[in-house]
Amino acid sequence: MPILPFAESEFRSRLQRVKQRMAADGLDVLVVTEPANIYYLTGYDAWSFYTTQALVVFQDAELPLWIGRMMDALTARVTTYLPDDRVVPYPDIYVNSKERHAAQFIAERILGEAPKAASVGVEMGAYYYTARDHAELVKAMPNARFTDAELLVNWVRFVKSPQEIAYMRQAGEITDRMMSRAVEVARPGVRECDVAAVLYEAQMAGTDAFGGLPATSPPHMGFGARAREPHPIFSDRPIDPQSVANIEVSGCRLRYHAPMSRTIYFGTPPQSYRDLASWVVEAMNAALDVVRPGITAEDVEAAWRGKLSTHAIEKEARLGYSIGAAYTPTWGERTASLRRGDRTVLEPGVAFHLMAGLWLEDTGITITQSFAVTERGYEALTRTPRELIVTG
Amino acid sequence: MPILPFAESEFRSRLQRVKQRMAADGLDVLVVTEPANIYYLTGYDAWSFYTTQALVVFQDAELPLWIGRMMDALTARVTTYLPDDRVVPYPDIYVNSKERHAAQFIAERILGEAPKAASVGVEMGAYYYTARDHAELVKAMPNARFTDAELLVNWVRFVKSPQEIAYMRQAGEITDRMMSRAVEVARPGVRECDVAAVLYEAQMAGTDAFGGLPATSPPHMGFGARAREPHPIFSDRPIDPQSVANIEVSGCRLRYHAPMSRTIYFGTPPQSYRDLASWVVEAMNAALDVVRPGITAEDVEAAWRGKLSTHAIEKEARLGYSIGAAYTPTWGERTASLRRGDRTVLEPGVAFHLMAGLWLEDTGITITQSFAVTERGYEALTRTPRELIVTG
Repeated sequence: MPILPFAESEFRSRLQRVKQRMAADGLDVLVVTEPANIYYLTGYDAWSFYTTQALVVFQDAELPLWIGRMMDALTARVTTYLPDDRVVPYPDIYVNSKERHAAQFIAERILGEAPKAASVGVEMGAYYYTARDHAELVKAMPNARFTDAELLVNWVRFVKSPQEIAYMRQAGEITDRMMSRAVEVARPGVRECDVAAVLYEAQMAGTDAFGGLPATSPPHMGFGARAREPHPIFSDRPIDPQSVANIEVSGCRLRYHAPMSRTIYFGTPPQSYRDLASWVVEAMNAALDVVRPGITAEDVEAAWRGKLSTHAIEKEARLGYSIGAAYTPTWGERTASLRRGDRTVLEPGVAFHLMAGLWLEDTGITITQSFAVTERGYEALTRTPRELIVTG
Repeated sequence: MPILPFAESEFRSRLQRVKQRMAADGLDVLVVTEPANIYYLTGYDAWSFYTTQALVVFQDAELPLWIGRMMDALTARVTTYLPDDRVVPYPDIYVNSKERHAAQFIAERILGEAPKAASVGVEMGAYYYTARDHAELVKAMPNARFTDAELLVNWVRFVKSPQEIAYMRQAGEITDRMMSRAVEVARPGVRECDVAAVLYEAQMAGTDAFGGLPATSPPHMGFGARAREPHPIFSDRPIDPQSVANIEVSGCRLRYHAPMSRTIYFGTPPQSYRDLASWVVEAMNAALDVVRPGITAEDVEAAWRGKLSTHAIEKEARLGYSIGAAYTPTWGERTASLRRGDRTVLEPGVAFHLMAGLWLEDTGITITQSFAVTERGYEALTRTPRELIVTG
């Protein structure tokens, strides 16, 4: 019996929505390669995307074809609702080979099933659809017209179902536990890697009711002078007294994420830093206050920008991004961004990480909030108070 | 002061070797996008590869150009030996944009520095060089001739320096600790995710002398019936009595890996399973016994195959792969494989994960060994005994 995180009916309705978009875009075939998209449409869940694999959706076939490496086909049978004849393994001679490429095999299967397929959508900017995957597929299907359908499935994923939001709420519960463990353990003299150790432990252990999973990304941890960097990796140096740390983490539940950043100050922060923290929180709360169905992504950013500008501070980078199911290397969904010019309309079931991080010349501060849009406003997906954390 | 994992002279000598290969291949410019290759050539270390970035090596310039997202430029200054004028940030308007693409920016900088560059190498099959990255780069450099230089840097990395091997030995020490913690904790009734929690904790905490880092991949953990799958993710189900678990992990030290798998049997294994384990170990030892400079990758596999065939067992997948520095999603270096037809000659400083995993119809067994080739034979990078682990 397959182990499905969603009812089969939910998977089938997702597939229908994808086919509707394919029809609107005139696509006969869609070659889905982004791991989160494959998971979303079938439940397929394995660390196998480092070799070429695809879920091929045919406009004219009821069910898609999973095509992947021989040794991973069993996982496709165990984790998806697809019947055995829709799971197609390719032999190991296609792996890391100069002469052969798995895209050739995939092309053969597409042409075998839909010899007249004229219009093929591919995810041009997806992480595991490499330049070579594309070149080989195009070469092997000389009569097809290829279209960039990169975010087609991602946009279908944009509005989450109640079950998806429930998983994100669970992810948020793990996020809170992770941060609370880090705050317990982090002290001057403790090595950065020992803080990371308890973060990871809490991430996997989850709660008594449900377990966690690794997130798409390691915790981003910037200590001392490196708090000015957004994506550093931790080291084994001890934490300095009278210093600052920015920590960005996400719990993960069945591949769903709810990220959060907090700044920890070790010692007594100067008043100027306390002021900066209160301005960030105030601007973030102003942004959250405008969230409701019907407003746009840029409206949220405008509320933040307006409030922050009263303190003569500006943030060039976007204020946030859509979140949901994800695989490495990012928990961002790559659809809507909270930034000027993004007129995506919010509706119940969409979710964002409001990434109120500031990396300035001499320091950085990151106090953020993941939220889902509800009928009347928003639901915070984590419960850690939005404030600067001050510790010993 | 930058934080460098290697002497600047080592980075410069790596760059020279890359330029020699570029000259041999007639390349004026090499656009390096694989994160491990960028790290290898400069020390750059950030979780920033989910947006487009590149290290551009010019045959006619002393130093390469790091080009990446604005917010990550500081990390490039902190973690590499490059002077500030070789660190080029692009503005945030290029991120997740329909109208703009960072490859356009990269092309401008290449043409600015080398307007007559005719021959450009790119890493066609690298994970973070997407089909769109390539299409945009080609469009923005209409007069250049593009060549697939995918594994050019990876092959330079193939032979490790003493310092690299020292880091892999430290990674192996962490690997041993991880497995030993898992064996301590894993018992029937314990949830899979709680075993994962201690694995991760040990991975980051490292030893008293040095800390760890997250590996490229989560631990691959297959319990019970799922031990037949090579790349499953753990769940929050409790371990069954009288069952089997395959666990594949890697410690990581400054991005260097030393992976290892072991099979744990909970309860009393049937004699047939004990026999299988002893055949695998015997065949693996036969393979290791032939390792020395001058033999080929396929010779190692032949020794394994020969021994295993006496028990009428065959493994279709390759027996192993080159390892070293790596970023997600795989600790495999994608160069030499221990398999039939691979005539790569072994020399001191090359390193492999001998992946003696068998996934059969009804069960799986994985007892593996990472090793480095020495002047006279091999050095085991982990010290956990090569045997089936039997526990309560």
